[in-house]
Amino acid sequence: MFKIIKKSKKTNSRLGVLTTASGRVDTPFFMPIATKAAIKSLTVAEVRDLGAQIILSNTYHNYLRPGISTIKKFGGLREFMNSDLPILTDSGGYQVFSLSNLRKIKGDNIEFRSHIDGSLQILNPKKVIDIQVALGSDIMMVLDECVGLPTTKAKAEQALNRTHHWAKMAIDYKNKLDKKSVKIRKQLLFGIVQGADFKDLRLQSVEYLSGLGFDGLAIGGLAVGESMKTMYGVLNYTASALPENKPHYLMGVGYPENIIEAVKQGIDMFDCVIPTREARHGKLYLWNGQANILKKNFYKTVVITNAKFANDRSPINSGHPLLRQYSKAYLHHLFKTQEPLALRLATLNNLKFYLDLMTEIRVAIKKGKL
Amino acid sequence: MFKIIKKSKKTNSRLGVLTTASGRVDTPFFMPIATKAAIKSLTVAEVRDLGAQIILSNTYHNYLRPGISTIKKFGGLREFMNSDLPILTDSGGYQVFSLSNLRKIKGDNIEFRSHIDGSLQILNPKKVIDIQVALGSDIMMVLDECVGLPTTKAKAEQALNRTHHWAKMAIDYKNKLDKKSVKIRKQLLFGIVQGADFKDLRLQSVEYLSGLGFDGLAIGGLAVGESMKTMYGVLNYTASALPENKPHYLMGVGYPENIIEAVKQGIDMFDCVIPTREARHGKLYLWNGQANILKKNFYKTVVITNAKFANDRSPINSGHPLLRQYSKAYLHHLFKTQEPLALRLATLNNLKFYLDLMTEIRVAIKKGKL
Repeated sequence: MFKIIKKSKKTNSRLGVLTTASGRVDTPFFMPIATKAAIKSLTVAEVRDLGAQIILSNTYHNYLRPGISTIKKFGGLREFMNSDLPILTDSGGYQVFSLSNLRKIKGDNIEFRSHIDGSLQILNPKKVIDIQVALGSDIMMVLDECVGLPTTKAKAEQALNRTHHWAKMAIDYKNKLDKKSVKIRKQLLFGIVQGADFKDLRLQSVEYLSGLGFDGLAIGGLAVGESMKTMYGVLNYTASALPENKPHYLMGVGYPENIIEAVKQGIDMFDCVIPTREARHGKLYLWNGQANILKKNFYKTVVITNAKFANDRSPINSGHPLLRQYSKAYLHHLFKTQEPLALRLATLNNLKFYLDLMTEIRVAIKKGKL
Repeated sequence: MFKIIKKSKKTNSRLGVLTTASGRVDTPFFMPIATKAAIKSLTVAEVRDLGAQIILSNTYHNYLRPGISTIKKFGGLREFMNSDLPILTDSGGYQVFSLSNLRKIKGDNIEFRSHIDGSLQILNPKKVIDIQVALGSDIMMVLDECVGLPTTKAKAEQALNRTHHWAKMAIDYKNKLDKKSVKIRKQLLFGIVQGADFKDLRLQSVEYLSGLGFDGLAIGGLAVGESMKTMYGVLNYTASALPENKPHYLMGVGYPENIIEAVKQGIDMFDCVIPTREARHGKLYLWNGQANILKKNFYKTVVITNAKFANDRSPINSGHPLLRQYSKAYLHHLFKTQEPLALRLATLNNLKFYLDLMTEIRVAIKKGKL
């Protein structure tokens, strides 16, 4: 299921292949985000052409809209959204805690109000598996409790105990389903390491979850507003404790330099809203000259809405067949006049950058340079 | 410049070829609208692939943003917006009268406040030519005064006199520029017939403008809220009076049945916001079975946001390589969740319908059926 092809001699970075029911994926990789079963303004075929190998969608959002009964009629999320790429779905835990109102935990149930229509909803560890089985996700994530940072040790410990209890429930339930063969395709299940910024809790979490037989382990609860120092600290002691032969997924991270740092710590999988969200605000990610991730300041960002781009005839991105045809001045104009083509071109640019970044990372590991 | 290939024996419809500096265009044709130098969410290459031969942009909007100095740096609007199709620009007259505030006519100047920033702006018949020369439009339109319907004869007559005076100024000025060879490419100039719904004024307008030597004549001042009966009435006596050997352009019209009726009256050129604007509201234009414009009820519209489409697995449009891959249920979902891909797919569908409609019209004339 996961095979390490090469290990770096310089860092903990590694090159691998993750095999899912819908296709093989070279690691380390980045997943463009299709929260509500769509990538912002782009088709899946377009992000595949940019080099995407797998995309991420969201259990919480798909559960609320279009709802599982619709997805089931299509035989899964890939079929519903016309994706020929594998899909990882996050569990909805993070969204329940960040988006919904009137959230209450009763036993193993999270009761909450939908952020869309205020309706009362319940999720629990088994139901989250059921939903992801209906979605047909290639990689499912367990329901966890994510606490913000900073937090107290008591709160972090309480959330961690619940996370562990739910993780055990989830994998036991998934194993039971596997025996009954009710799933529409072979699905992987990943556990999520929590523990806030407490080293003992994080190590305890890695140890506990490693014993449950997950197909991979994720580090959750980072990129929630903490400092870079805190993030790198937690990443360092957590990642180095993860079982080597499983894929390592750092959830929700981050800027290009964070991704490279995390790869060096042995992370294989990434997702982040940054390229798509910042595209909406006209912030473009571009290489600083030739693509070279080993160089300091290897990339730059430009805010295309700045007046200085109003007459800039240089192409948006000379490395892309469509973006090379449009000038920065034209994209500036599209943003200023709120033309929807603006979002499309900017998103294309930023996802291209992030996906090229991952290619550069894989090449650098292969060449023994990272 | 304009060549009639075939005249119908049944109606006044005709098949022709209009030659512009940027390419030949088969008539009758429909121009997708790129008001602010962009088609809503689509690239020009995409609408060309749908069968578009020429697009329409707007003098008023381009003049305000990005402004003529920017467009000049690119050598024209086609270069700025990366269009390999010819472009017709409307004169801005309609927009000045419908969008701007504090509009005052002083002599031949229209003073108005920009609808964007409230700045004081002036347009006049010569300046509108200068702007369109800078835009490098393949087809330029004269500045006119468009009155709404209903109106009084006195008002219609006053506006018509001004329209004629301005038309003369415009073509004289354009002929002067042609002699000086200051234009970046050969540009056609069309006059605009006004006269509200008064037959004598409309016929007077056709007669006057026909004598000025325009490359084509447009019928303006329709599709401004009047009844279908009024529109067809004006269309009938105006279109039949137009000089046969010039291209005839009916501005801003309309629904598919209006276009077919106008073609029968001898109209060669159309533009309309309907396909793109209604796409934004989830209204899709589709053939009713096989494409056949000679059939009653040859098309239908569906409002994809209706609940009945929530689980509809049929393709959005089986006649298009991309739209055939997505279900109506998925497009319904994209609209419900306000995903920008919704606009893109719906716009693609509606422009495809309008452009296919024109192809069907040309085929029907060719076969002697229209």
